Amino acid sequence: MIGESAGPRTVGELGEFALIDRINAGRSQVAAVLLGPGDDGALVAAPDGRFVVTTDMLVQGRHFRLDWSSPRDIGRKAIAQNAADVVAMGAAPTAFVVALGCPADTPLELVDGLADGLWAEAGRVGASVAGGDLVRSRDLIVSVTAFGDLGGRAPITRSGARVGDTVAVAGRLGWSAAGLAVLAAGADRERYADVVAAHRVPRPPYAAVLDAQVSRPHALTDVSDGLLADLGHIAAASSVRIDLDATALRDSRLEAIGAALGTDAAQWILAGGEEHAFAACWRTTAELPGGWRPIGQVCAGQGVTVDGATPSGARGWESFHGGDSANRDAPL
Amino acid sequence: MIGESAGPRTVGELGEFALIDRINAGRSQVAAVLLGPGDDGALVAAPDGRFVVTTDMLVQGRHFRLDWSSPRDIGRKAIAQNAADVVAMGAAPTAFVVALGCPADTPLELVDGLADGLWAEAGRVGASVAGGDLVRSRDLIVSVTAFGDLGGRAPITRSGARVGDTVAVAGRLGWSAAGLAVLAAGADRERYADVVAAHRVPRPPYAAVLDAQVSRPHALTDVSDGLLADLGHIAAASSVRIDLDATALRDSRLEAIGAALGTDAAQWILAGGEEHAFAACWRTTAELPGGWRPIGQVCAGQGVTVDGATPSGARGWESFHGGDSANRDAPL
Repeated sequence: MIGESAGPRTVGELGEFALIDRINAGRSQVAAVLLGPGDDGALVAAPDGRFVVTTDMLVQGRHFRLDWSSPRDIGRKAIAQNAADVVAMGAAPTAFVVALGCPADTPLELVDGLADGLWAEAGRVGASVAGGDLVRSRDLIVSVTAFGDLGGRAPITRSGARVGDTVAVAGRLGWSAAGLAVLAAGADRERYADVVAAHRVPRPPYAAVLDAQVSRPHALTDVSDGLLADLGHIAAASSVRIDLDATALRDSRLEAIGAALGTDAAQWILAGGEEHAFAACWRTTAELPGGWRPIGQVCAGQGVTVDGATPSGARGWESFHGGDSANRDAPL
Repeated sequence: MIGESAGPRTVGELGEFALIDRINAGRSQVAAVLLGPGDDGALVAAPDGRFVVTTDMLVQGRHFRLDWSSPRDIGRKAIAQNAADVVAMGAAPTAFVVALGCPADTPLELVDGLADGLWAEAGRVGASVAGGDLVRSRDLIVSVTAFGDLGGRAPITRSGARVGDTVAVAGRLGWSAAGLAVLAAGADRERYADVVAAHRVPRPPYAAVLDAQVSRPHALTDVSDGLLADLGHIAAASSVRIDLDATALRDSRLEAIGAALGTDAAQWILAGGEEHAFAACWRTTAELPGGWRPIGQVCAGQGVTVDGATPSGARGWESFHGGDSANRDAPL
């Protein structure tokens, strides 16, 4: 457009309200969003009289780096990790709201890319961004709240695992952690593009849960803090022990990358966070739907073991510890 | 307890999961929260098959200062400004989720106070904190999402004002801005304790809306960005002009403080944000419920005028501008 180059180039130059208009321009809300942005609040459908809700905040330097991820990747990741939590309750995502904090000198292109990523990932799960907030902050902060519809069914919690259940996963384990290790080591990003991509944008296998509703697991979670940590939550909530089969967890691609980087791939698989695979306990191996593979069983006792023994090494992501395999950020 | 003094004193020493347990210990969820913290998501009732949702992020240095407000005040303020948005849609708050970012060296007492404030204000509106997230960040960040129930009624939006309506407000105007001015000027906090308290913890007159449901306004908003800005949103959404009566807006207490500080109290009243009063357009002055006072009328045209003229001075809060009366923070 004529004169466009002389227009505002930063968030501060454009201003809050014009930026909100810019972000929302041309977007289409899904039917579940009865009233979208532009008033004091939005209105979202909850057909069975209840809704699942979860919230996750991403902080620049802690959960992403602008030199490692594109704004679009960050937007997709922010939605994906919240959508995975909704799906891990057994619900289908319906809508998201996003509070965004950024410095006044943030380029408009960054916010455009971020918003495009938010909308793209929301669209992947059949949902849209119903509203949000925009404020000034020192670091880029993306705080997402996600909503889901259970369709009249009971939520699938972490507390339903029973002795004898088959433990299974849908999706990859350790790839995000391996990608992070590649970026942190300054290794060849092209050579390891597969795991770097997994780190930049998690791809939760939503359909493996949402299409599996006829046969539903006893307990379900997403793998966000690391497999041992997340299965530990199920074991604790269900008062059982979960024993993993080390052989079933092996991944030859990660072992090759681990060998090249001098790192034990098993640590990525057992303790790597942000993967947003799903882990569940099913009544029998025979009932596992497509996309699920068995990795262990539920036993009497407590905690998580691998081939019957307590695993050594890092246990997973914890927000206020550095983490060994999940050393995702510079110290704050 | 024996040995307690040797226990963890900061968020980093205690760790994420133990801190989440500590924050939630001894809290009682309201009936609308069907499943509270402890799983991948929470489950909240939406009796009429829809829910109102709004989100607001508070950033340290931008929306509050720890030397001006107690952690409890900040928690109350974070909930109050979100609850006010829910009520401004004509809905009764049901639940909140809170994403909290803080540095690892944050004292546990700060988080305790903040959580107590969140729960106290949620309790004031008959709701509870259904879940949240806890992450590490450089600045203290409190990102709240609030939910509300319309009870089968239509939402009250900003677009329903009609020419001839009476414009009225419930709650005080300009007190928060005056309190901020007192703090910023280093004036006597005891002498101006009333306005300083209004700045630290907004007290939206929830009941003036929630008890007024028999007689409902045509349009409704909360005064968060400043009266002129927020009424400007109603005027734009309803394609009308709103004309305010300067005399009806006068406040002798603010005029006295303004005289002492060398500031025009009218600017606080017209442009001061964070007050979380409610402003609405009603069919007639006669139908105003208790707690509401007329301040103007809806006319043909556009924009907001005072005694028929375009007001001068600051227009209200805007996240990426400094603001004249709403100079709430150090530059970021």
